[in-house]
Amino acid sequence: MTTEAGLPGTTPAFDAVATAVRADLPILRPDGGPPLVYLDSAATSLTPEPVIDAITGYYRDVGASVHRGKHMLSDIASTRFEQVRAQVATEVGGGTRQVAFVPNTTAALNTVAAGLPLDRGDLVLAPLDVHHSNLLPWRARATVRMIPLTPEATPDLGAYAELLRLRPKVVAVSACSNVTGRFAPAEEMARMAHEAGALFVLDAAQSAPHGRIRLAATGADYAAFSAHKMLGPTGIGILYGRLAELAPSVLGGGTVDWVDLAGHRLRDEPHHLEPGTPHVAGVYGLGATLDYLRGLGWDAVAAHDATLTRLLYEEIARRPYLRPLGGPGHRDRAAIASLRLPPGADVDEVARMLSDSYRVMCRSGKLCAQPMVDGDGDGRPVLRISAYVYTTPEELGIAFAALDEVLTVTGVPLG
Amino acid sequence: MTTEAGLPGTTPAFDAVATAVRADLPILRPDGGPPLVYLDSAATSLTPEPVIDAITGYYRDVGASVHRGKHMLSDIASTRFEQVRAQVATEVGGGTRQVAFVPNTTAALNTVAAGLPLDRGDLVLAPLDVHHSNLLPWRARATVRMIPLTPEATPDLGAYAELLRLRPKVVAVSACSNVTGRFAPAEEMARMAHEAGALFVLDAAQSAPHGRIRLAATGADYAAFSAHKMLGPTGIGILYGRLAELAPSVLGGGTVDWVDLAGHRLRDEPHHLEPGTPHVAGVYGLGATLDYLRGLGWDAVAAHDATLTRLLYEEIARRPYLRPLGGPGHRDRAAIASLRLPPGADVDEVARMLSDSYRVMCRSGKLCAQPMVDGDGDGRPVLRISAYVYTTPEELGIAFAALDEVLTVTGVPLG
Repeated sequence: MTTEAGLPGTTPAFDAVATAVRADLPILRPDGGPPLVYLDSAATSLTPEPVIDAITGYYRDVGASVHRGKHMLSDIASTRFEQVRAQVATEVGGGTRQVAFVPNTTAALNTVAAGLPLDRGDLVLAPLDVHHSNLLPWRARATVRMIPLTPEATPDLGAYAELLRLRPKVVAVSACSNVTGRFAPAEEMARMAHEAGALFVLDAAQSAPHGRIRLAATGADYAAFSAHKMLGPTGIGILYGRLAELAPSVLGGGTVDWVDLAGHRLRDEPHHLEPGTPHVAGVYGLGATLDYLRGLGWDAVAAHDATLTRLLYEEIARRPYLRPLGGPGHRDRAAIASLRLPPGADVDEVARMLSDSYRVMCRSGKLCAQPMVDGDGDGRPVLRISAYVYTTPEELGIAFAALDEVLTVTGVPLG
Repeated sequence: MTTEAGLPGTTPAFDAVATAVRADLPILRPDGGPPLVYLDSAATSLTPEPVIDAITGYYRDVGASVHRGKHMLSDIASTRFEQVRAQVATEVGGGTRQVAFVPNTTAALNTVAAGLPLDRGDLVLAPLDVHHSNLLPWRARATVRMIPLTPEATPDLGAYAELLRLRPKVVAVSACSNVTGRFAPAEEMARMAHEAGALFVLDAAQSAPHGRIRLAATGADYAAFSAHKMLGPTGIGILYGRLAELAPSVLGGGTVDWVDLAGHRLRDEPHHLEPGTPHVAGVYGLGATLDYLRGLGWDAVAAHDATLTRLLYEEIARRPYLRPLGGPGHRDRAAIASLRLPPGADVDEVARMLSDSYRVMCRSGKLCAQPMVDGDGDGRPVLRISAYVYTTPEELGIAFAALDEVLTVTGVPLG
């Protein structure tokens, strides 16, 4: 299934992005059955062949660990490992000492929360839409106050300004909600945090994949994202920021350059935050991922996403029985929608039927953002549809037609 | 290069193991140059094609995350993920709730140290040969006393018995030293620890790959190892043990099943110790790794290793100018040797020349066990030669002949 140029509401440039990526995705190749429609990209994206090839290339041709020896294979691995670090630094707009490789975004945010000198009485502000991974690590170490959301589910800047008068130590924000797809005004929030003397920590797990990779420009002191949500491998996250100021919470091989019977001397940043043998194959894959996205063009990725978002919310708007969390608008939003289904619909069962009867993969759940998802009192899970660079308008059409059929077949009234 | 049957000191069964594995290792295929001799396996082993295929199979055919949705692809990934957990449980001899997937052994040991209720005044015992990753996490949270080593560099059980009278909370041991290859008497040390009321934590990173996978049988309360040292992928470690008793130090998505504005409810073990999107591809690879090793036969792997160890220490014994840490004996030892080179030898430079002039890859350094390596007062790094299932006697011959030549060429007196 390929995207044909000239579909209503798209442009040739838009179509070129999806067509190029789809050609590199083995899982989307026709297999005789109905087309597979993958709309769970906000959880994990699909992985194109050049990225897979970089991973296998490491295992087939290198195999050795990094920073562990003077031999050629270790040297090759170490050189590539540090090249990818430089590549990440270039993309985010920071320095190589500001980039650490960690297992995932959750690990990155915990590394920051555990590494800062926080006391239980210290205040941390976080909007109600933060992911659990940007809430629980703070709550374990400090006192968290939630920044309320506007009806569009973006942080309420007036309330935020008021809360900043309480002199928080940290403000922790989702750059893009994994529930609503809304982009937060990160730059403005960072500036306000700094004026109030607070550090600004940005969860960029959902924003970086959609083209917003220039994290240094947001002013964030720390930011985190994961390769697996942007066409890359599993097991690799990126922590960007003022790493020298973080005390490591995990110690061992790789984090120290001297140990004796009395103590140890930490390695310089970022190495003090990279304990044990790293996920070298994942870093190889991340390098190929960034090459791939750069090849598509970050602006093209963002533009493709903006068009998809518009088409996604147009589909929703045509169905008054669907209520998207965060409201109906498509501007300043990633191609993510979390839907309240009509009363009587068993959301998990709907997701299962979409998959098993229509090969449409989307997610049901509280989306690791339970305070927000439960905020409307509905109590049920939501159905999340999340698209990415390989998603086509036809696929959105297939998904919503299937949803209509599933609701109808299961006796849920649509009117 | 293949192993021919009937080499001095080997058996057809021995040769069959290495021959089978070498056929699956792309990096060892002849390329017209001198053969590549990889002897840095204690850092990271090479990876055979069936394992690589399992990793690429995930990316090509599945791509979705686990435990994150009701759709088919997530279901396939989740089922396989839990199958591999059960596979690990079977191999180590424990239950599935006793197995957590972590980034590496360092992360596993830190998870234990951070998860137990320890105070600074609590005592932890650790033999002098422990890896930094099994020393520093304890030192950060408690008071560590080192168990001295015998001249053969195994824990001195008499001194250990004395130290146990101090009522330690934890005893942390390397099942196999990454420096000397010596196996510790883990079962006996665990029994003694338990009699003294202490928990027993076993770093099995170097023992499990060499056939000693039955970790439950050691009596250890906790044990850890990594896939990448046993033919498997990078980025995946295994923590085995009484996981329900560990408080998680990293919180976020995946570790909780309820979050509201006031608090959260942790998921049951092992999930409370698996924060964020896991390294699903790595778990697929780990499953194939265990299949592969089981196919070879754990006993065959151990027997192959014992023969290699004998040949390795025979090569060393023929060269009085080489002093292996932990002494000359080959019994109850993995195929790992760390060598003191003659005075005047620049160890890093020797490793570099072995690599660049002879394609022999071995490691120089303090091996993340600096208190032990520096214990003889030499002050220099050691040269470590570490073999694995794919290593042949010819390769050991090539490596030692090359070492002789490098030392001679650089003017180091050998007599």
